[in-house]
Parts: sequence; structure tokens; C-alpha cells
Amino acid sequence: MTDTLKVGKSILEQQPFSMYLGTELVSFEPGRAVLALAVRPEFLQQHGFVHGGVISYLIDNAITFAGGSVLGENVVTVEFKVNYIRPARGERLMAIATVEGSGERIAVCRCEVFSVKGAKERRCAVGQGTITALS
Amino acid sequence: MTDTLKVGKSILEQQPFSMYLGTELVSFEPGRAVLALAVRPEFLQQHGFVHGGVISYLIDNAITFAGGSVLGENVVTVEFKVNYIRPARGERLMAIATVEGSGERIAVCRCEVFSVKGAKERRCAVGQGTITALS
Amino acid sequence: MTDTLKVGKSILEQQPFSMYLGTELVSFEPGRAVLALAVRPEFLQQHGFVHGGVISYLIDNAITFAGGSVLGENVVTVEFKVNYIRPARGERLMAIATVEGSGERIAVCRCEVFSVKGAKERRCAVGQGTITALS
Amino acid sequence: MTDTLKVGKSILEQQPFSMYLGTELVSFEPGRAVLALAVRPEFLQQHGFVHGGVISYLIDNAITFAGGSVLGENVVTVEFKVNYIRPARGERLMAIATVEGSGERIAVCRCEVFSVKGAKERRCAVGQGTITALS
Repeated sequence: MTDTLKVGKSILEQQPFSMYLGTELVSFEPGRAVLALAVRPEFLQQHGFVHGGVISYLIDNAITFAGGSVLGENVVTVEFKVNYIRPARGERLMAIATVEGSGERIAVCRCEVFSVKGAKERRCAVGQGTITALS
Repeated sequence: MTDTLKVGKSILEQQPFSMYLGTELVSFEPGRAVLALAVRPEFLQQHGFVHGGVISYLIDNAITFAGGSVLGENVVTVEFKVNYIRPARGERLMAIATVEGSGERIAVCRCEVFSVKGAKERRCAVGQGTITALS
Repeated sequence: MTDTLKVGKSILEQQPFSMYLGTELVSFEPGRAVLALAVRPEFLQQHGFVHGGVISYLIDNAITFAGGSVLGENVVTVEFKVNYIRPARGERLMAIATVEGSGERIAVCRCEVFSVKGAKERRCAVGQGTITALS
Repeated sequence: MTDTLKVGKSILEQQPFSMYLGTELVSFEPGRAVLALAVRPEFLQQHGFVHGGVISYLIDNAITFAGGSVLGENVVTVEFKVNYIRPARGERLMAIATVEGSGERIAVCRCEVFSVKGAKERRCAVGQGTITALS
């Protein structure tokens, strides 16, 4: 495990909400972060799919990590947007966030969320947002 | 309690994720929906504020209800955006969603999220998104 | 005319694109800016409505002014989102932008765009975005 | 020139605003559309960069074409978001839009805008939005 990943994991562990849901930081390097979340029955909505709020949480968190990978640890999400592409089912969600551009204080990130069932991955949402360094 | 509110509450109760978090539908009428959520320690992030993912979940859900109030029960969130205004602390979150415009199949909604502590309310996020009726 | 409005008008006049389209700054005060634009035939799209790009331009510009009214002159739009509510026709567009929240360096703004025909005003789009002060 | 590109060009030519600015459809195939625009002095803002409104117009238009390439000719932009990455200068802008996912009536698209100066291309903005077929 890289030192960067270790630092990232320790930050994630300080987020009670992420621990409550069971989020894992799978990969963390300059310009990119990957979060994974095992789907539990309590994450669903009324049609049996993963609730959009779980997916938007993952995007928010993944882009904060991606932004932090270039701006430093002390960052927050300014804003983001999510487009849902298809209903998410499956055993596991993966959120892959990348930095699309960054300056000294602001990073623009995007994120793709995949639902994983066995060997099948399907992209179920895309997001885009802004991360800023706190001074 | 109005019949509309009763119907809304029964839909919310069918969302395992909303029940997991403890979300309540406080008000539900044509063009407007209000959700409330008591803040629990497991909803926080590493700085002691409510995690953005909790707030974005509330926006997603509140605009779906608002959209459904004019489009019918069978709706989904197509997309939304959130801007965080200030860190959310306090005992309770309130998400007030309104329909800004709607056609036969699509409603544009906005949402304001307030953190409530005693008698003090502070707006901590604003959102905007699109709801569509499933055919 | 207030001094604030005078300053705002002089900034708008330094924007060649705004002069090219004919945009006017109608009102400018702390936390709020109103732009107006007379609709010309060259602003339309293939169905005879005002092109969405004209409307999104107005939102971008109006929120920059609104943000600048609280952050200072030297600001830029970080990002914004627009939802179109109905096709825009009519003689004139009005974009009303307000500051929803602001800190030292960032302001969250929203904007409503109305199409005006005689005495009739119809809201045709809503936007939300982030303005930042350049250091 | 493919028949698809010919059809696309003829639609673009029916947009007075696109003709007013001088937009060209460079490439048009299922799932992807590329627009180009030669930068003219009247497209700038007060700091000498291309006005954000020109860039947001390009994103709006490019994603409508991309969405139309999979949904059919009769489409409109429901909403979109833009994040500006860096100031746009240069001789020419290119907007490359792709379909990220689509159903019968809705397509989710993203768009990258590049400023081109000689052989140098720099990405200056990214966008994401929703296109819908009109019934």
C-alpha cells in the first residue's frame, strides 16, 4: 500500500458517515481516487435499486479525495452535479474520480459510478464538481 | 394529516435508505415537499459537520417528492446539482423543495437545506434538479 | 443612477461580447444584479425560440455581477448550471441574479431568466452557480 | 462527407444564433458531435479572454447534437452544467460532446471545450447535461 493510500484511508476513517455506510478507499494517487461500497439492503429505494442519495454521496466523497490529491488534505466540496444514467443494482458500487483541471486553490473533478455484479460492471451515474482548498 | 401527505409518507416508508437514516416527510402538497432529518453522530464527516452526502441525499429525495407532487407517483430524479453554502451543524436538517416549472413529463425543482439548532435556522445548501415521470 | 450601478455598467461595457449582443445592466446592488437583453432575430434557434446559448450567457454574466457585488470587482464564474423551463420567445429577456450565500472568496448565486412580451413575463430558465474572487 | 454530417450541418444552418457567431459542425456520428468556432474580437470579455457565455453556448449546442445523434433530430437541451478550467484564448474553440448514456427519450452527454492556438490545444471547460426527445 502506498503512503498516499494510507493517508487517504486514515482520512476516510475519520468520516463517521463513510464508516457507517462501509465505504472503502481502493485507490488514491495524484489526480485520481477510487471509492468502493458494498451494497446493503438498507441502501435501496422503493423500486429495489440503490438510492440515488447513496450514489450522490459517493460522488461527493470521491471528488473530494481526487481534489485533495492535488490540493492537499484540507479541502471541501464546493458543489457538484450528478446525472443518473441507469438504475443501480448489484453487489458493489465503484466511484472513480479524476481531476480534470486544477489551479492553486480549486480543482475541477469528474466522477463515474459503476455498479458491479459478478464480473459485470455498468456505469450508472456521472458527476462533475468543484473542490477548494481551505486556507 | 392530508391524504396527499399520507400517500407521501407511505412512499417514503418504502425507501429502505430513508428509513435507515430516519428521514421524515413533514409537508407534501402540489409543488412543494419538506423533508426533515434528525442529525445523528454517524452522519458527520471528519470536521464534525454533517457529511455533504447526507445533504445531497436530502436534496435528491426532496426534489423527487416535489416533482412527484405534480407529475404523479412514478417519478425519478434525472439529475441534480448542489452548492454547499456553509458547514451544517445542529440537531436537525430541513430540506424544502419546490417546483420551479413543469410540463407533462418533466419538472424542474429547487431545494434549500437548512440546519436547525434550537430556534436558529441557517441555510447550508441549495440544489436544483430535474425530475421525470416514468411512462 | 447609483454609483454602484455606474461602476457595473462600465464593467459591462468593457465586455465586447456583451456589447455585441446588446446586454444592459438594469440594476446592480449588493447581492443582486439584473441584466436585460432585447431579442434580435439572430439570437434564435431553428424552432424560432431564443437559443439556449443566449440564455446561458445571460445567467453566466448575471451571476458574475451578483457575485462581484459582494466579493469585489475582480471575480470570475467558476461554474454554473442552467435548467430550461420553457421555450423563450418575446421581445426581451431579463436575468435576475441573487447571492444565496457568500464567504470571503466564494459566492453562491442563483438566477432566474424571464422572457418579456408586452406586459407578460414568463420565467424560462433557472440557474445556479459559483463565483470566486481572483486574488 | 457522411450523410449524417450533412443532416447535422443543415440543422446547424437553421440556427440563426449559430450562424451569427460562425459555428461549424466538424464531426457528427452516433454518440458524438464536434463543433468549432473561430474566435473573433467581439467574443471576448473584459480581460481579453473568450467570454464564458460563448463557451457555455458551445457546450449547450454540442451536447444537443450529440444527444440528437442517438435520440433523433427533434431534441432539446433540458439542462447542463459547465465548469471553467482555465481562461480561453487562442484562435479557435473546439467543443467535443459525447453521449455517456441514453434511453428512449433521454441522453446524458458530456462535453470538453478546447482552445486552439497554432498546434496547441488546451482544455478550457468541461460540461455535462441532459438532452430529451420531443414527442
